[in-house]
Amino acid sequence: MDEFELIGRYFKTLTPERRDVRLGIGDDAALLKLPDGHELAVTTDTLVAGRHYPEDTAPYDVGWKSLAANLSDLAAMGAEPRWFTLALTLRFADPEWLSGFATGLRDMAVQAGVALVGGDTTQGPPSITITAMGTVPVGEAIRRSGAKPGDVVCVTGTLGDAALALSRLENKELPQFLRRRLERPTPRIKSGAALRGVAHAAIDISDGLAGDLSHILEASGVGAEIQAAALPMSEEFRSLTEPSERLQFQAAGGDDYELCLCIPPDKLRAMRRKLDVPLTEIGRITREPELRILDADGAVVPFEPFGYRHFS
Amino acid sequence: MDEFELIGRYFKTLTPERRDVRLGIGDDAALLKLPDGHELAVTTDTLVAGRHYPEDTAPYDVGWKSLAANLSDLAAMGAEPRWFTLALTLRFADPEWLSGFATGLRDMAVQAGVALVGGDTTQGPPSITITAMGTVPVGEAIRRSGAKPGDVVCVTGTLGDAALALSRLENKELPQFLRRRLERPTPRIKSGAALRGVAHAAIDISDGLAGDLSHILEASGVGAEIQAAALPMSEEFRSLTEPSERLQFQAAGGDDYELCLCIPPDKLRAMRRKLDVPLTEIGRITREPELRILDADGAVVPFEPFGYRHFS
Repeated sequence: MDEFELIGRYFKTLTPERRDVRLGIGDDAALLKLPDGHELAVTTDTLVAGRHYPEDTAPYDVGWKSLAANLSDLAAMGAEPRWFTLALTLRFADPEWLSGFATGLRDMAVQAGVALVGGDTTQGPPSITITAMGTVPVGEAIRRSGAKPGDVVCVTGTLGDAALALSRLENKELPQFLRRRLERPTPRIKSGAALRGVAHAAIDISDGLAGDLSHILEASGVGAEIQAAALPMSEEFRSLTEPSERLQFQAAGGDDYELCLCIPPDKLRAMRRKLDVPLTEIGRITREPELRILDADGAVVPFEPFGYRHFS
Repeated sequence: MDEFELIGRYFKTLTPERRDVRLGIGDDAALLKLPDGHELAVTTDTLVAGRHYPEDTAPYDVGWKSLAANLSDLAAMGAEPRWFTLALTLRFADPEWLSGFATGLRDMAVQAGVALVGGDTTQGPPSITITAMGTVPVGEAIRRSGAKPGDVVCVTGTLGDAALALSRLENKELPQFLRRRLERPTPRIKSGAALRGVAHAAIDISDGLAGDLSHILEASGVGAEIQAAALPMSEEFRSLTEPSERLQFQAAGGDDYELCLCIPPDKLRAMRRKLDVPLTEIGRITREPELRILDADGAVVPFEPFGYRHFS
């Protein structure tokens, strides 16, 4: 089997057809049509086997998550995902692995309505690079740099599930819900789009709440006070953790792929009604350029806002 | 040094500023503005160290070529390159290697006027994935599928230089010209743009003339007769090869990054005057769906139209 057959067999007709794909896989480049009055949003992410996921991860989950992680970045901009390219490097063309990977990738693509428009399949140490593209009306993208003192800091969904699951992967009694939160995250695409024109800033929580929120604070030149007790948790998370260990999972653990956003207080209620996921207030943006996490008594919790970083 | 410092230091301000970059590196996604009436052209390529280039290749050349290869794909569509993303995987953050790589990447980016708008730097077995984006007026892209019987088959520049250089890399007396043809190819961006509305089909020759031309023939449902003696060669190539070995280098060897195109005979002369590189007629498109390479006596040269293929 050569590269071309491989790509053809597994990927060429894998994902939804879109009318804005004027020319898909099979030429020197894909041709794509943006709607008038829109900007292109582009993001790229690499997953290296053995580093970003265990080599024995189910190929379905690798396919799902590699696309979901990129779509989550588009969601955080308020962009509508449309297309993606896939650069897939494999040691050898294992049909079983490829089939599982392609199915997971397809299911995420179908759920999000995005089309695979190009790619490159090469032999080498396994890694996956996806470049996802979406569109957003001109000037309406949600950036990291717009947070203002007084804004409410919110997150979608629950925090800590994925990090907890990662720490207990060997546990056979780990609830399926938690495992799925780690292995098949749901990018908050609709929430991101709904937040356009309302949220002052947003980021997706892939590296941990504290680290990712810090990016907003730096870009906006502000600080934040976060109430540790306000961080939303799932029932499964609550039942499997001691209170003393929760903050580490919820604020430092990555892979949640929820959105963290800053929104004027008077917009919170309307936005809560509009979103299809829970939106939880966890703190406030402050003028003082510092991230402080407070316990129930209002005391600062000593906490290093590190997320997942490479080369560190 | 962590991932973020790394990216910041070497890449954030590396490439030309462009007014159509509304938001560059540093948010969840880049925001890019296409001109009205244009489509987006997207292509992606991965280079794996030790497979696509020797691990001891000068980092400058790795940076240059990884971008040039992608821009060559855009050139083959007649697209105007604008932006690219970089997914860079490294075993460790070697400042000297990174500096060389970044300089080569920058020099190619400056020459082509393209801006780096996003990326991901991860630790792992070295590889480089670039996704290049450009624009083309709606409906004007040059596809592979438009070749018609009677069209002249042409190539830009000369063929075989890169493959010859690759086979003689250890030879210290290898002319610098040939080495540069392999290590710092020039994407034919201006030629591609000039061919819009004139050429019926085009492809870039990265995997070898015969293999790449075969893609045009398959996509167009036609064949071609190519005159082996007509394949353009550089003086350096001529002086270092025996006639008997030339066809292998020129028709099967990859990495030339010239354009192969199909054009109506009556347009050839005007196009030759317009291009800033030589345009050589090498054969004709035929109705019979077969690629035949003919010698000076008109006899078919036995030749397998294979190019560089993975997993084969």
